[in-house]
Amino acid sequence: MNQSLTLTMPLDMHLHLRDGEMLGLVAPLSSYTFSGALIMPNLVPPVKTLADIREYSQRIIAAMESDDFEPYMTLFYQNYSRDFLIGVQDAITAIKLYPSGVTTNSEGGISAFDIESMRETLETMSELGIVLCVHGETNGFVMDREAEFMSVYEMLAVNFPKLKIVMEHITTAQAVEMLDKYDNLYATITVHHLMITLDDVAGGMLRPHLFCKPIAKRPEDRDALLNLALNAHPKVMFGSDSAPHPRHAKESCGCGAGVFTAPIALQLLCEVFDAHGKLDNLQAFVSDNAQRIYGICAEYKEVVLTKQPFIVPQMYGSVVPMRAGETLAWSVSNVD
Amino acid sequence: MNQSLTLTMPLDMHLHLRDGEMLGLVAPLSSYTFSGALIMPNLVPPVKTLADIREYSQRIIAAMESDDFEPYMTLFYQNYSRDFLIGVQDAITAIKLYPSGVTTNSEGGISAFDIESMRETLETMSELGIVLCVHGETNGFVMDREAEFMSVYEMLAVNFPKLKIVMEHITTAQAVEMLDKYDNLYATITVHHLMITLDDVAGGMLRPHLFCKPIAKRPEDRDALLNLALNAHPKVMFGSDSAPHPRHAKESCGCGAGVFTAPIALQLLCEVFDAHGKLDNLQAFVSDNAQRIYGICAEYKEVVLTKQPFIVPQMYGSVVPMRAGETLAWSVSNVD
Repeated sequence: MNQSLTLTMPLDMHLHLRDGEMLGLVAPLSSYTFSGALIMPNLVPPVKTLADIREYSQRIIAAMESDDFEPYMTLFYQNYSRDFLIGVQDAITAIKLYPSGVTTNSEGGISAFDIESMRETLETMSELGIVLCVHGETNGFVMDREAEFMSVYEMLAVNFPKLKIVMEHITTAQAVEMLDKYDNLYATITVHHLMITLDDVAGGMLRPHLFCKPIAKRPEDRDALLNLALNAHPKVMFGSDSAPHPRHAKESCGCGAGVFTAPIALQLLCEVFDAHGKLDNLQAFVSDNAQRIYGICAEYKEVVLTKQPFIVPQMYGSVVPMRAGETLAWSVSNVD
Repeated sequence: MNQSLTLTMPLDMHLHLRDGEMLGLVAPLSSYTFSGALIMPNLVPPVKTLADIREYSQRIIAAMESDDFEPYMTLFYQNYSRDFLIGVQDAITAIKLYPSGVTTNSEGGISAFDIESMRETLETMSELGIVLCVHGETNGFVMDREAEFMSVYEMLAVNFPKLKIVMEHITTAQAVEMLDKYDNLYATITVHHLMITLDDVAGGMLRPHLFCKPIAKRPEDRDALLNLALNAHPKVMFGSDSAPHPRHAKESCGCGAGVFTAPIALQLLCEVFDAHGKLDNLQAFVSDNAQRIYGICAEYKEVVLTKQPFIVPQMYGSVVPMRAGETLAWSVSNVD
């Protein structure tokens, strides 16, 4: 009898579904095993109005081939008026802030963190209970970008003590340390950042399908992230940052950033938590913490994972997943 | 009238020519503008015998379409007997030591630096004046590999004070610092490591054609290298480490390490030295230092470079060069 684990209401609190044909490809892959996901707004153009949100969520619902998956919508951060935020609050779960130019389709983001110009928006968000999600990187040297951003997190946390701030896809020991410094700071962690370091991206062959932003860091950074996730630190949630790029855009002379993990995320998480004898903590990491932090009540879903081999497909449509063609130790055996 | 610069007897003291069809493609590209090059021995199988050297140098000479280019041959390091080294000394310029597994075709290299087992070989090399070239990386975390290797350089330099040791393609401030610590340590620097950092490889898009070993490091490392090269530090030589890989092997799901610069190396060097007002020092960096350090008298050649735009081809045969399709500020206007 193979070992198995039942996860209830798994949530992916950082997901890129893109739009159009790609949305049609990837939405069903997430909606199959997850109860819901926080949907990133960095489309072209970004999601900025109530109409954008409504239309995008309708396109997601049409694409997802499942009625037990909730797309938690986010708005692309800019300074919004109080009236606008009041009008939009029921349609969104969070607002995602991108520093300008640091990742895919972030060109319209914030270029200087002028707290005073942001104050009305951030205070209204605090008051209305809208979470602020942040891609925390500067435009500095690639290995330093997240660590350099810590002073911005600190400034936001101090100035808006009632605003829930999520440090998205953290990758460094510095971010891990920051987490406990302020009550209103939270974090998501991807599954790939629990598994890889820069060595996996560029230490042997160069591996475009492991190239992402923030880039995977040093072994001691990964260990710090593992320590948080494996112990299901109450302020940490799973967010895959799964980001599909067509194969030709990854294997070319200039490859875009993003690792595609959505359809194998739960299997990989089981592998990681099992390897460290921490399977008991996976439920909190992948669902309970997020429900408590965001105050959401997820669609009911039970996912049974079994410790039997699963061979990852070489491609999902035009997209090469992480671990393509490799055998994972765990597979999804039932979804109810 | 465009600014111009005449270089006499340019030398590339670290070059990969490969073999077979690739040799036929790349040898003429180096022999056109260089008087000679130190030819790396990491073929499959590596160059290990007198017959290997003679046959490989004949294949190079047949391929190079020029009679004013000298291939300075190297042997793949293993522990060789005194008799063997005496027999081979006239056919080689140096012996190249690879730690096992750190770069392309280095599997047969040295896996533990057991000084006693290497003593006979290294003492005979000292005595015969055979230079030891070293690929100085450990198997550690990719950004630390060269810095971690410094203790091996130190051990070699101290134990064999009369052996000339060249730290090949140095990339870190640590190696720059090591250079002046021991009289018998020298170094080569590539042109790409004078121009790029990890940011160029993986800071924006992932750029396989800039992926090499050692990987490009931090801005402060590049600045330390620039400081050495631009001032033509007397213990430093140009070595391109130009390494051709067919395009399909670079733009794939696992890309090999190597930047192809041979046909544009002198133009790029002019660009770098000109940008810093140091063109007067380029002759020493690209020829004089190497002739003095190696005690070689290069084939006479004069290369005139002119400050007029040169558009780098998208491909040389199957190989994508650095800066493909871009315009360089300097071009080769005459070779005599």
